[in-house]
Amino acid sequence: MAEQAPAPGSRDGISRRGILGLFGAGAAGAVVGAAGGAGTAVAVTGAFGGPEASAAYDFHGTHQAGITTPAQDRLHFAAFDVSDSLDRAGLVGLLADWTDAAARLTQGLEVEEGGAVGGSDHAPPADTGEALGLPAAGLTITFGFGPTLFEDAAGVDRFGIAARRPPALQALPRFQGDALKAEWTGGDLCIQACADDPQVAVHAIRNLSRIAFGRASLRWSQLGFGRTSSTSTSQSTPRNLFGFKDGTANVKAEDGEALAEHVWVDAADEPAWLAGGSYLVARKIRMVIENWDRVQLGEQEQLVGRSKGEGAPLSGGTEFAEPDFEATGATGAPLMAATSHVRLAHAASNGGVRMLRRGYNFVDGNDQLGRLDAGLFFLSFQRSPEQFVTVQRSLASDGLNEYLKHVGSAIFAVPGGIRPGEHVGQPLFA
Amino acid sequence: MAEQAPAPGSRDGISRRGILGLFGAGAAGAVVGAAGGAGTAVAVTGAFGGPEASAAYDFHGTHQAGITTPAQDRLHFAAFDVSDSLDRAGLVGLLADWTDAAARLTQGLEVEEGGAVGGSDHAPPADTGEALGLPAAGLTITFGFGPTLFEDAAGVDRFGIAARRPPALQALPRFQGDALKAEWTGGDLCIQACADDPQVAVHAIRNLSRIAFGRASLRWSQLGFGRTSSTSTSQSTPRNLFGFKDGTANVKAEDGEALAEHVWVDAADEPAWLAGGSYLVARKIRMVIENWDRVQLGEQEQLVGRSKGEGAPLSGGTEFAEPDFEATGATGAPLMAATSHVRLAHAASNGGVRMLRRGYNFVDGNDQLGRLDAGLFFLSFQRSPEQFVTVQRSLASDGLNEYLKHVGSAIFAVPGGIRPGEHVGQPLFA
Repeated sequence: MAEQAPAPGSRDGISRRGILGLFGAGAAGAVVGAAGGAGTAVAVTGAFGGPEASAAYDFHGTHQAGITTPAQDRLHFAAFDVSDSLDRAGLVGLLADWTDAAARLTQGLEVEEGGAVGGSDHAPPADTGEALGLPAAGLTITFGFGPTLFEDAAGVDRFGIAARRPPALQALPRFQGDALKAEWTGGDLCIQACADDPQVAVHAIRNLSRIAFGRASLRWSQLGFGRTSSTSTSQSTPRNLFGFKDGTANVKAEDGEALAEHVWVDAADEPAWLAGGSYLVARKIRMVIENWDRVQLGEQEQLVGRSKGEGAPLSGGTEFAEPDFEATGATGAPLMAATSHVRLAHAASNGGVRMLRRGYNFVDGNDQLGRLDAGLFFLSFQRSPEQFVTVQRSLASDGLNEYLKHVGSAIFAVPGGIRPGEHVGQPLFA
Repeated sequence: MAEQAPAPGSRDGISRRGILGLFGAGAAGAVVGAAGGAGTAVAVTGAFGGPEASAAYDFHGTHQAGITTPAQDRLHFAAFDVSDSLDRAGLVGLLADWTDAAARLTQGLEVEEGGAVGGSDHAPPADTGEALGLPAAGLTITFGFGPTLFEDAAGVDRFGIAARRPPALQALPRFQGDALKAEWTGGDLCIQACADDPQVAVHAIRNLSRIAFGRASLRWSQLGFGRTSSTSTSQSTPRNLFGFKDGTANVKAEDGEALAEHVWVDAADEPAWLAGGSYLVARKIRMVIENWDRVQLGEQEQLVGRSKGEGAPLSGGTEFAEPDFEATGATGAPLMAATSHVRLAHAASNGGVRMLRRGYNFVDGNDQLGRLDAGLFFLSFQRSPEQFVTVQRSLASDGLNEYLKHVGSAIFAVPGGIRPGEHVGQPLFA
C-alpha cells in the first residue's frame, strides 16, 4: 500500500486549523485501501463521499481496478463498435495500445511521455493535454467485451473468438417496461473511466477514443456523478436522484467472501480465460423525477422500503439493520410492502443473489417539456449475468417502476486483472 | 469573513499526516476570500483547481455571489421561460420564493427546514432530498433577467417593466459563423448554480425548477465541469478541451479597479436599478476536438498564441508575461500571429475592453459519428454587453474558428446583490 508523502508544515496561508475544519465538516473521513489485487491506494474519503485526494490506483493486479475500488465520484463510460475493417491482429493491437495508455493514464501520466507538448511536423501531439498538471485523481479504467465482439449481428466470427465466447454472454432479455433506444444500447467493447475529477475521466475516454481512431468508434457514452453506490465500508451511503440512500446492502470491497461468491468469475467457471473477471451490466434508467417529487413522503418510503432520512428499513432499526420481511404493522400488512424496491431487490427475494452495484446519477439537460433529463446510470458487476436477470425480473412488480424508464442497456464480459507486459483480455487470444 | 469551525482532533482514522499529505499533493493550496460584498468564505484551493472544501459563501451582499467567487469546479446552468399566465405579482412572488430558497441552499440547508423528510398527507416533501447530508460545497446561485422578460417576442410588456428595461439588454447580434439552435438559446430568466459537487448544483437547479412549477419552466440547461477560467489569483489557471490554459488574463476578484471598470454596473450607469449588477453572456460553443487533435503542436500554439505546456505568450516569458504584439521572429512575422486567439481577444485589440470569464467545459455524450459532443460553455460577466460584442466581432478572424461552432447564446441582466429580507431584482419592481 503506497502512502502519499505529506507536505511539511503549512503553505500559502493554509493553517492546520483550516484543514481540520474542512474535514471536520465532512460526513465520513477515513484513510482507506481497496481490497483486491488491483486498486489499492491511500485515499481520503472526504465530504463528497469519494476519495478527494490525488489517489493513484494500481493498474495491474488480480482483477481490473474500477470494480471494488472505492467508488469515485465521477464517471465517463463509453461503448465502442469495432471497425468492419479490423482483423484479429488489429483488434489485439488496439487492446494492447489501450492497455499501455490506460496503465499510464491511471498513474496521472500523459498517454506518452511528453505527449501533450510533443509530436513533430508530421504528427500532432500524442496526448490532448487537458489533464496536464492534474493529478491521477483516483482514475480507474476498466475494459469490457460485448457479445457482438464474439459474433456480430449477422453471426460472423470476425476475430476467431466465437468458440471462446462465454456461454452466459448474451444480449439481455427484454424486461417488462423496457423502452430501450439503440443510441444507448449495446457495443462491441466498453471502457468505464471513473475518477474524482471529471476532467480526468473525460481526458481518459477522449484519448482512448483517439487511439482507437480507424479501429473502433464511439457508439455511445455517458457522464455521471457520484452518490448512487458505495463499494467500500469506508464510504458513507450516497443518495440517488429520488433523494434516497442507495446501495446500503451493496457487496463491498471488504467482504472477500461475498466478492468470491457474487462478483468474480472463478477459475472453475466457464470459460477459463475469464477467471478473475466479471460481467458488467449497464442500464441507462431515466427517472421521471417531476412526478416523483409530487409523491408524499410516506408513499415514497413505502415504494422504496426505507425511511428517507436515515435510510433504515421500514421494519425498524438503523440504516444497516437487516430488513425484516415478516414484520407487520397494526393493520397486519407487512412493514416492508410486497412491492417495495428493497424487498424485491433483496437477496432474500432472489434465491440469495447479490451484485456489486457501481452506478452514477446523471443529468443530460432537459427535454422539450422542461423536465430534467435525469436518472440513474446503473452499473453492476456480477459473476454471471443471470444474477442481474433474476433481480430485474423480480423488480417487474416494483412500485418504483411508475417513475423509471429503462432507455439503454448493455452487457460486457470484463476480463480479469492485467499483468505487467500483457494486454487486457490476453488469455482470450492466447 | 465567516470562518468554518474546525472539528477537534482526528476522526475515523484520518491522521493529520494523511491530511497534510493530501493537500501537499495539490498544485495550489491557499485560504482565499473572494473580493466583494458577497461570496466571502474560507475555502481551500485544492488539487482540482477549485475550493474542495465545504465552503459556504454569503448569499447576501453588494453583488450577487457566483461572479467574483473563486470559480467552483461544477456548473448547472438553467434558462427559464415565464408562464404566459403569470402576472407581475406572480413574477415577484416567484423571485421572492427563489430568493428565499437560494439563501438557504447556498448555506447547505434544505429548501425548508426539515423539507426533505417533511410534507403531509396532502403535500409531498418540500425538498427533493438528494443533497441531504452533503455540505454547501461552495454553492452559489446567481439570477439573471433576459430581454424577453421586459418585452416578449410579440412586443408585449407582460410585467409592466418594459420602460425600465436596460437599453443595452438586447438579443445579441448575429456573429459570423453562428450556428445557433433554439434549444440552447434565449430565456426570460436564468439561474447559474456553481458548486464543488455536481450533486449540490443539480439539487439547487432541480429544486428551484420545482418551486417555479406552473410559473416558469426550464427552457434549456447545461452541466459543466471546471477548468476554463479562474476568477481569483489564488487559483491556478485551468485548461480547456483544446488542452490549453484558459483565462490567464481574466479579470480577477482581487483587482477591484478592473472589476469596477469592466464588470459591475455603476450607480451612474443606466438603469439605476441595475447598480451593482452586471450583464451575463452565455454561449454554448462546441469544439470539433477530433479535428483539433490532428493539428500539430506548433500550429495549435500559433492559433492560440500561447505555448501549450506553460501557457506563455509566444512573444516570450512565462504564463503571466504580457504578450508583446510588436515582437517579430526571424522571418519578420509577428510572434503573436495576426489571427491568434490571444491577440484578437486581448484588451489591446479591443480598445481596452475586458470581461470576467467564468466558463466551463462540457461533454454531452457523442454524436452519431462517434465524435464527442464537447466544448466550452462560455460565460462572461461585463458592465455592458457591448464589451462581449466588441471582442466577439474581433474574433471573426480567429484561426480557432475552424474548430469552434457557436450553437447556443443568451444574454441576461444580472441584478446587484440582495439584501436580507429583499428578493432578487427588488429595485426593478420598486
